Amino acid sequence: MKKLLVVITTIVANKGEVRDNKMAIKTAEEYYQSLKNLHPATYILGEKVANPYEHPLVKHQLAGVAETYALAQEPEGEKYLVSKSSIVGERVSRFVKFYESVDDLIAKIKMLKFLSQNIGTCYMRCTGMDAINSVGIETYSCDKKYGTNYYKRLLKFVKYIQKNDLVVWSGVTDVKGDRSRRPSQQTDPDMYLHIVEKKKDGIVVRGAKIHQTGSLCAHMGLIVPGREMREEDEDYAVCFAVPVDAEGIIHIYGRGTLEARPMENMDLGNIRFSKFAPMVIFDNVFVPWDRVFMCGEYEFAGSMARHFGNFHRHSHGGCKCGVGDILIGAAALVADYNGLSNVSHINNKLTEMIKTCQTIYGCSVAASVEAEPTDSGIYTVDPVLSNTSKLYEGKELHEVVRMLIEIAGGMVADVPSEKDFNSPDIGPFLHKYLRGVDNISTEDRVRLYRLIEKLAFESRDIVSNIHGAGSPETHKLTVLRNTDFESKKKMVKRLAGIEE
Amino acid sequence: MKKLLVVITTIVANKGEVRDNKMAIKTAEEYYQSLKNLHPATYILGEKVANPYEHPLVKHQLAGVAETYALAQEPEGEKYLVSKSSIVGERVSRFVKFYESVDDLIAKIKMLKFLSQNIGTCYMRCTGMDAINSVGIETYSCDKKYGTNYYKRLLKFVKYIQKNDLVVWSGVTDVKGDRSRRPSQQTDPDMYLHIVEKKKDGIVVRGAKIHQTGSLCAHMGLIVPGREMREEDEDYAVCFAVPVDAEGIIHIYGRGTLEARPMENMDLGNIRFSKFAPMVIFDNVFVPWDRVFMCGEYEFAGSMARHFGNFHRHSHGGCKCGVGDILIGAAALVADYNGLSNVSHINNKLTEMIKTCQTIYGCSVAASVEAEPTDSGIYTVDPVLSNTSKLYEGKELHEVVRMLIEIAGGMVADVPSEKDFNSPDIGPFLHKYLRGVDNISTEDRVRLYRLIEKLAFESRDIVSNIHGAGSPETHKLTVLRNTDFESKKKMVKRLAGIEE
Amino acid sequence: MKKLLVVITTIVANKGEVRDNKMAIKTAEEYYQSLKNLHPATYILGEKVANPYEHPLVKHQLAGVAETYALAQEPEGEKYLVSKSSIVGERVSRFVKFYESVDDLIAKIKMLKFLSQNIGTCYMRCTGMDAINSVGIETYSCDKKYGTNYYKRLLKFVKYIQKNDLVVWSGVTDVKGDRSRRPSQQTDPDMYLHIVEKKKDGIVVRGAKIHQTGSLCAHMGLIVPGREMREEDEDYAVCFAVPVDAEGIIHIYGRGTLEARPMENMDLGNIRFSKFAPMVIFDNVFVPWDRVFMCGEYEFAGSMARHFGNFHRHSHGGCKCGVGDILIGAAALVADYNGLSNVSHINNKLTEMIKTCQTIYGCSVAASVEAEPTDSGIYTVDPVLSNTSKLYEGKELHEVVRMLIEIAGGMVADVPSEKDFNSPDIGPFLHKYLRGVDNISTEDRVRLYRLIEKLAFESRDIVSNIHGAGSPETHKLTVLRNTDFESKKKMVKRLAGIEE
Amino acid sequence: MKKLLVVITTIVANKGEVRDNKMAIKTAEEYYQSLKNLHPATYILGEKVANPYEHPLVKHQLAGVAETYALAQEPEGEKYLVSKSSIVGERVSRFVKFYESVDDLIAKIKMLKFLSQNIGTCYMRCTGMDAINSVGIETYSCDKKYGTNYYKRLLKFVKYIQKNDLVVWSGVTDVKGDRSRRPSQQTDPDMYLHIVEKKKDGIVVRGAKIHQTGSLCAHMGLIVPGREMREEDEDYAVCFAVPVDAEGIIHIYGRGTLEARPMENMDLGNIRFSKFAPMVIFDNVFVPWDRVFMCGEYEFAGSMARHFGNFHRHSHGGCKCGVGDILIGAAALVADYNGLSNVSHINNKLTEMIKTCQTIYGCSVAASVEAEPTDSGIYTVDPVLSNTSKLYEGKELHEVVRMLIEIAGGMVADVPSEKDFNSPDIGPFLHKYLRGVDNISTEDRVRLYRLIEKLAFESRDIVSNIHGAGSPETHKLTVLRNTDFESKKKMVKRLAGIEE
Repeated sequence: MKKLLVVITTIVANKGEVRDNKMAIKTAEEYYQSLKNLHPATYILGEKVANPYEHPLVKHQLAGVAETYALAQEPEGEKYLVSKSSIVGERVSRFVKFYESVDDLIAKIKMLKFLSQNIGTCYMRCTGMDAINSVGIETYSCDKKYGTNYYKRLLKFVKYIQKNDLVVWSGVTDVKGDRSRRPSQQTDPDMYLHIVEKKKDGIVVRGAKIHQTGSLCAHMGLIVPGREMREEDEDYAVCFAVPVDAEGIIHIYGRGTLEARPMENMDLGNIRFSKFAPMVIFDNVFVPWDRVFMCGEYEFAGSMARHFGNFHRHSHGGCKCGVGDILIGAAALVADYNGLSNVSHINNKLTEMIKTCQTIYGCSVAASVEAEPTDSGIYTVDPVLSNTSKLYEGKELHEVVRMLIEIAGGMVADVPSEKDFNSPDIGPFLHKYLRGVDNISTEDRVRLYRLIEKLAFESRDIVSNIHGAGSPETHKLTVLRNTDFESKKKMVKRLAGIEE
Repeated sequence: MKKLLVVITTIVANKGEVRDNKMAIKTAEEYYQSLKNLHPATYILGEKVANPYEHPLVKHQLAGVAETYALAQEPEGEKYLVSKSSIVGERVSRFVKFYESVDDLIAKIKMLKFLSQNIGTCYMRCTGMDAINSVGIETYSCDKKYGTNYYKRLLKFVKYIQKNDLVVWSGVTDVKGDRSRRPSQQTDPDMYLHIVEKKKDGIVVRGAKIHQTGSLCAHMGLIVPGREMREEDEDYAVCFAVPVDAEGIIHIYGRGTLEARPMENMDLGNIRFSKFAPMVIFDNVFVPWDRVFMCGEYEFAGSMARHFGNFHRHSHGGCKCGVGDILIGAAALVADYNGLSNVSHINNKLTEMIKTCQTIYGCSVAASVEAEPTDSGIYTVDPVLSNTSKLYEGKELHEVVRMLIEIAGGMVADVPSEKDFNSPDIGPFLHKYLRGVDNISTEDRVRLYRLIEKLAFESRDIVSNIHGAGSPETHKLTVLRNTDFESKKKMVKRLAGIEE
Repeated sequence: MKKLLVVITTIVANKGEVRDNKMAIKTAEEYYQSLKNLHPATYILGEKVANPYEHPLVKHQLAGVAETYALAQEPEGEKYLVSKSSIVGERVSRFVKFYESVDDLIAKIKMLKFLSQNIGTCYMRCTGMDAINSVGIETYSCDKKYGTNYYKRLLKFVKYIQKNDLVVWSGVTDVKGDRSRRPSQQTDPDMYLHIVEKKKDGIVVRGAKIHQTGSLCAHMGLIVPGREMREEDEDYAVCFAVPVDAEGIIHIYGRGTLEARPMENMDLGNIRFSKFAPMVIFDNVFVPWDRVFMCGEYEFAGSMARHFGNFHRHSHGGCKCGVGDILIGAAALVADYNGLSNVSHINNKLTEMIKTCQTIYGCSVAASVEAEPTDSGIYTVDPVLSNTSKLYEGKELHEVVRMLIEIAGGMVADVPSEKDFNSPDIGPFLHKYLRGVDNISTEDRVRLYRLIEKLAFESRDIVSNIHGAGSPETHKLTVLRNTDFESKKKMVKRLAGIEE
Repeated sequence: MKKLLVVITTIVANKGEVRDNKMAIKTAEEYYQSLKNLHPATYILGEKVANPYEHPLVKHQLAGVAETYALAQEPEGEKYLVSKSSIVGERVSRFVKFYESVDDLIAKIKMLKFLSQNIGTCYMRCTGMDAINSVGIETYSCDKKYGTNYYKRLLKFVKYIQKNDLVVWSGVTDVKGDRSRRPSQQTDPDMYLHIVEKKKDGIVVRGAKIHQTGSLCAHMGLIVPGREMREEDEDYAVCFAVPVDAEGIIHIYGRGTLEARPMENMDLGNIRFSKFAPMVIFDNVFVPWDRVFMCGEYEFAGSMARHFGNFHRHSHGGCKCGVGDILIGAAALVADYNGLSNVSHINNKLTEMIKTCQTIYGCSVAASVEAEPTDSGIYTVDPVLSNTSKLYEGKELHEVVRMLIEIAGGMVADVPSEKDFNSPDIGPFLHKYLRGVDNISTEDRVRLYRLIEKLAFESRDIVSNIHGAGSPETHKLTVLRNTDFESKKKMVKRLAGIEE
């Protein structure tokens, strides 16, 4: 196994200066530096890539993650991004902190909203945050039941992550094969990641996790089961941490729309940030015991997956509300640029767009308010409210995007390229004919259309709205299963005069 | 003017017993007693009614209000309904208290949800509560600007209300005449309530307030403007308190659906509670100065109306979520009674019903979390979130009702009456043929269908979902006007690379 | 068994005058006369009613049916309502005619739309029309398979109906008991109507049909199975015709909303027409063999029910589009009366209302265009398109009603009664304060609000939108089952380059 | 001006053979041949392209158009695609024929549905067909009013097109500049195409038409105004025909999503067909008089644009229903491939998808049934029904796509490329891990995902759903303006008892 040689951040603690207890927080530059010693096996469009961090299809999401570090250094961002850890007693990134109160959960929503407003796409760090917390709850429960020491191991891991301000990606979704079959029923036993060997010093795992958004931006992965398991699925009930470049791990780029743009470094839309979602193969990867947090205790797999799901739908509530602000702002701005400010039907659509985004946000805030502590001390969000929020994202945010397209008009689909604008033959025609209102340059109008195209058609973002943190049917089921129907039936009987 | 001879509640303060500082809270019995000295001029279906409190079309809403008193005496209800007032220094009903914190606003939501779960229809006290708070904010602002003493007068009024635990109804909606004209432009100047005379000891007002839900259940009215006013509408900028039976006030019953049932005292559905919504005529009503809280300061009329609207939409968020629990419970129960428990398409509909009701609730909770204090110390809710909540009530709660009808089946429309069940000729046929599953009696099944009929077709309730606290277009406008588009446009420009 | 003594209409055939071949069509007066010899056993609100035809809760639907006769006498109505029968060779009412072509089916849609525009509620004759046609198809198929002579019997019955221009009601929906059980599995075997005895001269049946809209307006009933049957349900596979007042038949009024109005003959809303939906008990009713059209041939029960369903959903397409025109017209008119003509958000809502109603209509017209002949020569509508139409009625027409309420405003719920308007004390206040724009009298404005109240809250109408012709889940299932997925999958494979 | 040297098709007429009167129909090969003499000035991604017909970003749409020729040669396709022209007395392509009856309009819908089912994306020929018909109606009206001879000129043009079976593209949408200003009010007068000079032998025009789907696949353009014009916009009221490679015409490729795929000739999804939408600059283009069909008669500009819009929305009804079949088939197939056949929630979604697509189709068929002839003999579709159909496409088809994504799962966003599958390092991993059910190869599953990605994220297709044939707001306005509210208000008054 390769070693994770992340240098402990050079910001010395207890310097007694302005941010005396904030020693753990890296700068963006330090984040980039910290990746230099990592060498994850990476394939992009059929090529093995030596330094994925500079690849045009990867580097824009790295920039998004780096932005979370950069913003934490600014006063406004620090407010959202940094908080004191009760574990290390220092100020750490919220991305590596336990949810210890209602306020922590509200602060998380506000942090993610703030970041999405600044980045406009995925910065991927919430997956690790949500995984750490769900693993926290269930390792505590497992230890309590079986006397295992997973929670202690996890604390050690979290301390390491906090001290070094690392990025963690959560590996949840297996490739799944035939969906009508449980893990242990698949023809190929590797369709869900599982333990293939238990050794003296650790375990060996095999399988593949798919949709691993931004895996290459992370230092470590925290791999958790993606569903409930039964006794026969025991080997699939496994949870562990692993460096991004561990021996046997292979990241394979999954291709999305609009790839031609970064490859040519033009017509990007979102000029700095983007997203990618590789598949990560675990080809007999060794994990030492002190990084193993579940190993066969199948009855905790489902709860761990459900906690992760509920936390991550809650995260989406903050994130996508922030993305929603970008969608709304883009719609309002393009109306201005086209001479359509304060047009009645556009105002109607803007109102609908706001309504949806506020609902996503509001239900997440309420899910925080109704949060409850578990035995571990970690707070769980209200599952009905957090899944309700996600249902709007899964269905109505697509309609918000449609309304953006409707307001923007057909040009979303067919603006010529920067190369055309630069052509002496046709550039002048384009500058002339693609002009909107007088006081806005054609260049700026085209920049805006490019951003709208990106917002409306970046497949990884759109699909995340629908399938991120589980699919809508899962959210519906969670809502249904967490509703107390019996108490409601009782109220009804009382009003109708039906005696029990 | 008749006098409001409400006897100060006999529960002596400072008795030092169990609930030592809760002296102000009336019992249901005391509430009923307190109405005995009131003699509001009342017309129902063309008849002048001497004692409206016993009329079958009124008494079921009185029962709902009485239930709010009764529940306050029970430990669970007290938790929701009673809180300490900073004005009188005693525990008072939340219905007559200022919103002094985020917690107060969350507590209000939870109180209203709790009451609706128990009553299943309107208990009308929230209108007074919301009016007191909106008048509080604007009298404070007005005094600050003009050196008037409205806020002080209001405090005196509120103390009186708190000490005596009275019910206040808010008179907001004018009859409005031609909607395309402002108050001062109407052919008949009385289409909006207005000052007709300013006297030494008070003012005389004329006009009519419509949709005055439960006016006859109140001791006092707090009359506020229903819209913004301009200089030319000065006389319409008026706010005051008045006893329910003041000279010149006439309550005229507005008829709704299902009236045949209480008139015959059968087939009620909700066997105890119902609603009515009269029109209240102000035929030259005199108001003494110390009950006048606005008198021509037109620039505060709009804010007062808007605050009331936002508070009241917030109230609906709690109330209608509780009603929603009844709708959901009724749907789940009728499925059981018909042998359709755990049927996939019914579960889908239940999930949708829950989703809508949780959205209404969640956005209201979030509107509380994001509340901010005004100069008066009274907290205002977040207008975008509270109006977002109301938009779901206005549109989607109707769909929730439709889903209830869909789950219940056609019998919602045509169950024979109790008289038929009691007929020796046909009663046996009905008992035989209207049976559902074996273990539920036909009587109970029919009781449930009657309740569902009431929930689905009581016009005053259904129309309240849509038009209560203003119409959906008002809510949309509030959402739009309270959204900061410029900051969103800036975020967009940054992402697209557009320089300002 | 009582006899159906309908006097053959006095209009002598072949007179060679203007409408020479239209002899069969009754006038409204003749329709009323024809009911005089009928004495159906009827119970309304616990009372046995000797002459139901004059009862205030029945007579308004009689008026609707009579209007179908009256309109057939007028040139415009005749165009829609009268057509030549290939069976009797004369011009007969479309309500008793077979669907012999695409044009017949389009004509049916247009007839129903025309009638609904004139009546604004149910005129119930389409149920018999749809039943005659579905029985026609399946008796033909059954005879072909088993050599029975049901079709011939049916033709005789239809000729009789055509010659006498009678009203037929279709008895489809059984009370059903426990919905999770088949007919033969119910604890009480009578929960679905069934054969209890086969005699030499006929059969005896027992059971109860519910939601029998307007049964008392009919001369005859055509009773059909409401679902598929299996071998064990053989006795439930029964179809027959029966006079409305046959021995053992009891009509029990099912109560709806707004009953207080016709009982007092005021505040009717729709001043002439209304609807009722009784339950009809079959307490050992004898049916002679020549009126029996299915007797145990269970494999045809399902098809018969499905044909009826598809035809009746198709009927709804025409009917509810016409009702939709009333909803739209009422919304447009109330906007005028309130001074809100040409307001942007109202125009938006009107457009949505039109969209839904046109969809209901358009898909029904298209279902006619794609109709196909059966072996019997009777055309069946396209099931996917007719059920698609009905899905909009079941879900979106409720939203159309909500939009009507939204446009009309809160007064839908609480206009005082005619008695109040007639009161010398308060009548003048009401005339003064309930005025809208100057040029419309308060009386007319109030008439309109009463009609809107009726349109929005008449439970029998609203529930018919949702559950008439089967429930939405049935429509969805029909859409799914009649879609050819395999051909679509093939198209997809070809485009994707997947070889079979 | 370059000349359009299309060789008259070599199939000699009147040969008296099998398809004796079908002489005009080209084969696909002849279509390709016919393009050889055309040399349209074309720019793609900044490069001037000598032979655009072989460019990877163009050739896939050419293939779609060629397929319309190929299918016309097959018996099933001929049925849909070929019909007798009353102008040339021969069988011609429906794409160049007048709508002479209700049947023609229904046949058009069925043809477009058939083609979309086979091509799965745009084949662009309907734009010319709809333009020919709208120009036909208005030239006829204009001649009648002003004695011009535009209609005669048009007939000559249409004959030429029919005889040579040419492809016509319609140039409708101008670039429009500031949308709040009319054509003549723009700062730059060229923001709408206009006449810059009238010469003895013809006119010179300048401007730019945008979203010119497939312009390079056409032989000729038929350029029509995109909106109503007033007297001051006289120079903008211009209609004419022009060869695709006329002097001064420049086609500039507008870039869309997924371009990287055809550029690398892999991962295409739809393996044969695609779409592009260039901007077409008219830089002082000369048009001879006999190709000019409107020249300043501004009062006919609006009607011409509206007719085009209504016809084209009608076309979308057939086309998008066919595309819908592909979306539905893909959803059903991917469910099979994932082991999720006959899962309840997927069946629900499939039903919703079918419902929307059938609505689009059904309302278009009904718009044909209700079509009416104009003075020219050309039939116009019912505008309310055709625009209603389009409103579902504009809003609900986006939801259909979302449901496809929901059913397909996250893999829509991140399947690795063919290059990865071909890599010896990682290919085996991908084949192993991206397998679904046992009996389907990974290759086929991946092919299907690629097609779904194309269906869900090809920006030109998705934006066409929303903005093709005008934007939803235009459709709403058309619905509103073509509804007869006064007749509906009269019906309402009659029912409510309001006398006029």
